[in-house]
Amino acid sequence: MRRMAILCSGGDVSGMNAALKRFVEYALMRRIEPFFVYDGYEGLIDGRIVKAGYEDVARILTLGGTNIGSARSKRFMEASYRAQAARQLQKRGIEGIVVLGGEGSFKGMQLLHQEHAVAVAGIPSTIDNDIAGTEYCLGVDTALNTVKCQIDAVRDTAASFRRAFVIETMGRECGYLALVSALTSGAEMCLIPELPYDLQAYEARFKRQLQEGRRYFIAVVAEALKKTDEIAAWFASRIGVESRTVVLGHTQRGGNPTVYDRITAFRFVTRAVDELLRNRSGVVCLEGSALTYKKVEDVAFKPYRISEELLALWE
Amino acid sequence: MRRMAILCSGGDVSGMNAALKRFVEYALMRRIEPFFVYDGYEGLIDGRIVKAGYEDVARILTLGGTNIGSARSKRFMEASYRAQAARQLQKRGIEGIVVLGGEGSFKGMQLLHQEHAVAVAGIPSTIDNDIAGTEYCLGVDTALNTVKCQIDAVRDTAASFRRAFVIETMGRECGYLALVSALTSGAEMCLIPELPYDLQAYEARFKRQLQEGRRYFIAVVAEALKKTDEIAAWFASRIGVESRTVVLGHTQRGGNPTVYDRITAFRFVTRAVDELLRNRSGVVCLEGSALTYKKVEDVAFKPYRISEELLALWE
Amino acid sequence: MRRMAILCSGGDVSGMNAALKRFVEYALMRRIEPFFVYDGYEGLIDGRIVKAGYEDVARILTLGGTNIGSARSKRFMEASYRAQAARQLQKRGIEGIVVLGGEGSFKGMQLLHQEHAVAVAGIPSTIDNDIAGTEYCLGVDTALNTVKCQIDAVRDTAASFRRAFVIETMGRECGYLALVSALTSGAEMCLIPELPYDLQAYEARFKRQLQEGRRYFIAVVAEALKKTDEIAAWFASRIGVESRTVVLGHTQRGGNPTVYDRITAFRFVTRAVDELLRNRSGVVCLEGSALTYKKVEDVAFKPYRISEELLALWE
Amino acid sequence: MRRMAILCSGGDVSGMNAALKRFVEYALMRRIEPFFVYDGYEGLIDGRIVKAGYEDVARILTLGGTNIGSARSKRFMEASYRAQAARQLQKRGIEGIVVLGGEGSFKGMQLLHQEHAVAVAGIPSTIDNDIAGTEYCLGVDTALNTVKCQIDAVRDTAASFRRAFVIETMGRECGYLALVSALTSGAEMCLIPELPYDLQAYEARFKRQLQEGRRYFIAVVAEALKKTDEIAAWFASRIGVESRTVVLGHTQRGGNPTVYDRITAFRFVTRAVDELLRNRSGVVCLEGSALTYKKVEDVAFKPYRISEELLALWE
Repeated sequence: MRRMAILCSGGDVSGMNAALKRFVEYALMRRIEPFFVYDGYEGLIDGRIVKAGYEDVARILTLGGTNIGSARSKRFMEASYRAQAARQLQKRGIEGIVVLGGEGSFKGMQLLHQEHAVAVAGIPSTIDNDIAGTEYCLGVDTALNTVKCQIDAVRDTAASFRRAFVIETMGRECGYLALVSALTSGAEMCLIPELPYDLQAYEARFKRQLQEGRRYFIAVVAEALKKTDEIAAWFASRIGVESRTVVLGHTQRGGNPTVYDRITAFRFVTRAVDELLRNRSGVVCLEGSALTYKKVEDVAFKPYRISEELLALWE
Repeated sequence: MRRMAILCSGGDVSGMNAALKRFVEYALMRRIEPFFVYDGYEGLIDGRIVKAGYEDVARILTLGGTNIGSARSKRFMEASYRAQAARQLQKRGIEGIVVLGGEGSFKGMQLLHQEHAVAVAGIPSTIDNDIAGTEYCLGVDTALNTVKCQIDAVRDTAASFRRAFVIETMGRECGYLALVSALTSGAEMCLIPELPYDLQAYEARFKRQLQEGRRYFIAVVAEALKKTDEIAAWFASRIGVESRTVVLGHTQRGGNPTVYDRITAFRFVTRAVDELLRNRSGVVCLEGSALTYKKVEDVAFKPYRISEELLALWE
Repeated sequence: MRRMAILCSGGDVSGMNAALKRFVEYALMRRIEPFFVYDGYEGLIDGRIVKAGYEDVARILTLGGTNIGSARSKRFMEASYRAQAARQLQKRGIEGIVVLGGEGSFKGMQLLHQEHAVAVAGIPSTIDNDIAGTEYCLGVDTALNTVKCQIDAVRDTAASFRRAFVIETMGRECGYLALVSALTSGAEMCLIPELPYDLQAYEARFKRQLQEGRRYFIAVVAEALKKTDEIAAWFASRIGVESRTVVLGHTQRGGNPTVYDRITAFRFVTRAVDELLRNRSGVVCLEGSALTYKKVEDVAFKPYRISEELLALWE
Repeated sequence: MRRMAILCSGGDVSGMNAALKRFVEYALMRRIEPFFVYDGYEGLIDGRIVKAGYEDVARILTLGGTNIGSARSKRFMEASYRAQAARQLQKRGIEGIVVLGGEGSFKGMQLLHQEHAVAVAGIPSTIDNDIAGTEYCLGVDTALNTVKCQIDAVRDTAASFRRAFVIETMGRECGYLALVSALTSGAEMCLIPELPYDLQAYEARFKRQLQEGRRYFIAVVAEALKKTDEIAAWFASRIGVESRTVVLGHTQRGGNPTVYDRITAFRFVTRAVDELLRNRSGVVCLEGSALTYKKVEDVAFKPYRISEELLALWE
């Protein structure tokens, strides 16, 4: 293999730029020509594919998001557009492609591989941390630390009043981000899809704590539950404290990547390039502290589960 | 004067704890006994007034919010409760009080002074920076830097997509926070009560920029306008880009105070204590880089205006 | 077991306060009375042992260092003082103790266990990450992110001049902190005990890069090598660029703990308490993503090795 | 005037990139062609002068340092090189130049103006805040907040031990940075050239505090005094506590600029461009909250004094 490309697909995460930097530098070290595909599969279909060099990745380590754009692509779900995408690669002599994305992106990547013999290597990248098969997805650590700073700040203001704050974190189906944020910020309440909860038990406990002198409550609620406003109303009506909601939203995504996301990006990309050089398609996964390389179908199509040990920390 | 108290009223701001620390240390240096009033005027009425010492202010400099609580008090608007509050002070021998708060808090403070001859010194404290008579209110700098970090993070993710982000900052009536945030984050749009705006001109400009290759827009909208959702819809329908709203909310309030808020808190409190020792009531103001001490009525009852020079930076 | 204590020994790390918080809360949940031992083994010998409650751990999650003090203790190396320490525990009915520290602390803990039948559970805590048997020591992630911020800042100023910066990180014998910092900050040079290096090769490369237009270099050097000044002189004399040294020093230790250090502290403490309740002595280790519990002698007395995969990232 | 240039001279500061961004955008708004001079007066002499556009200043707001390089220039002290520099400007039709720098840079600028009728506008930029005539120099606020974070971190670790930390801040002749850092971090000792100090008084106070239970001390010492190691030795020998020194060094310079440095950069540049358009040479100063424009000789050649009010806060 002489030429290799990289693209970002789906939601952006911090650490993607670190991955781009490593991709360019490691490819050149292995005497491969690196290419950037702009704007995900959309750019692949339309041929926005550009040769990359050192100067493209200078000083991008500190930037969140991705400098080559990301996109969601409906067209790529159609075989005809995937064929067009494959032709864009073939006519440039690009035989392998690294895809940073989530489950949906990997499904598309797999079809490209099966239909057009393009070598593909996926790198799990989503702040939801909801991909079965890997214990870690790029971007999660930065998102968690961003949320931590925000909840720490909210706690300062919450502690100044007799008040409850209901904080909604991202996570369309998975409560991982909410759970870890609630644990590590010392929240009084955590509501996620993976844990049953008993509002009556919370009510009894919170009322007792108010009598004992507690002034404020922090509740972290996963976006997936769609219950943020309901819980805020519950605090006002059942617990008898003023409440405020804070929807953290897109501020969770960006930001200067943490050391863990930078080093994980380097490790993921190094392995992905190594595997493509051996013409093996798959997804790089983190299991324990070791990297593994799995078949795409073993990664994308199974439900993710938060570890029992982590769930047990919330009691 | 032998005894002096301090209280926080209204919304909390970062820097209040720095003020508490300086109050205790400077009072003791001047051989005054310092007291904390917990939970604003509510605590004053109910007598939650406690002698303070060094140990109460150790390591609180880095904390946002206020360690002695704040509150809004409807009762304090009634003369009978103000009389009760005055008695709480008198029976403890406290002759002067420092009040950290905004316009409403100063009105109450003024009545306490006029009706019961308590010496009062106000310190402007609100992230809205909307108090006429002073060029700076405690907490603004920390809030601005918190907002900056969040918009910087949103820009990372915005730049990864073809998308508009509409960011709502706090500011019930004043656009100062939104204006400075928009300027210093390089936002493409800024809507505040103090500036007329022309959506048609924005539309023409943004459409031209999209044709020239621009991918994303950041709009900062003051809460006061209540137009955040409307502007997001405008981006989708008129400009033709996906849009997202981010309501920064209470994360703007808290956080480790900046150097400017720490030093300003020290300066404000030092002056307030000095004036109370001369039995002079008023409000400490910052004009240019100098502190002044004004009559309460000169501060609280006039509308605040953003400087023309600052408004002119947004063109 | 009805009563349990915790102490911090040796260098402090961020995450110790999170461990204290979890210790108190989890002990109470398991119906154990929690005690704090102040100032490490020194405080244990002298009986500075105090019952702990919720109020002692409120709002300490965000603080670096340790609120119960740490110390190095020469006395504890003597059997007679260990006997005195054991009596301090016995007369309070404390049967188990959690020790946060490094290799030296664990040796002392082991002797206390062997000589006096005190149940002991060690939690690896050192920013050097140099304890054989565990893949992670509490505090490393916060230290790495602190160093990252500092090198990012130095890079800004380095890039403004034609200049080399030689940055010394902590690590008395182990280059882990330096290696990961060099990798994730994109440093041009990394010198650690674990990697051979060839200054002549560096010289050839750097001179070529200068000719190609490079303006600055960042070198990260582990404290262990004691070569920081020498390398700075080398840049000036051999490469021909002005150079500056930055010794990061104790700023690397402290700071608000990251999410990873907070959650790891919780996990470590939970396991330590669980093991003590079964009267099992040992050290909690992280292997992959799973906790294990090892005999003290399997942890403390073997040299630590940085993984080959990580070393290979630096080429 | 149709063409204008900007350059950075001397030590870099955070906020220079914000100034570059505003320069390009405001010049274009005023229908001026903006040019960058790379590497200060060195680049001016050698003609490294490049036309600048929007794309050169996209996303540089968050970067410390300066993207166009800075340098100290011995050659520029010679008239013949200044003549060469003037020709470089003349042959490109550039009639005015904005200079970001400190006192030395302004002297050179003044000579260029007097000898060759180039219009010049200086913008005070130095973290020492030591330029007479202006109350603020670009970069100071970011430097102060960077130092604050570092001292906050050191305090965490200091409080864990019985220990003194002696922290050296930048400031070759001026103690401003050290004074404000000491005040706002609650340091126990502050030694600067502007304040007399009495080590015997400190000794008496610190010994008394140790007896009362104090565990640690933070001392901030200005680089100008060259006494950092001496004070550390004093703590060990006279006070009887272990001591450590931390030389903050170049980490103080860089970093994402604060809101204050961003907005001040915008204000300074806007005024500088406006004045050059009227063919007036001078230096933009901040007095109180208002900008003034002064003759170069009124700025550069007078000693700077820290305000009495600020000095009085340290007692």
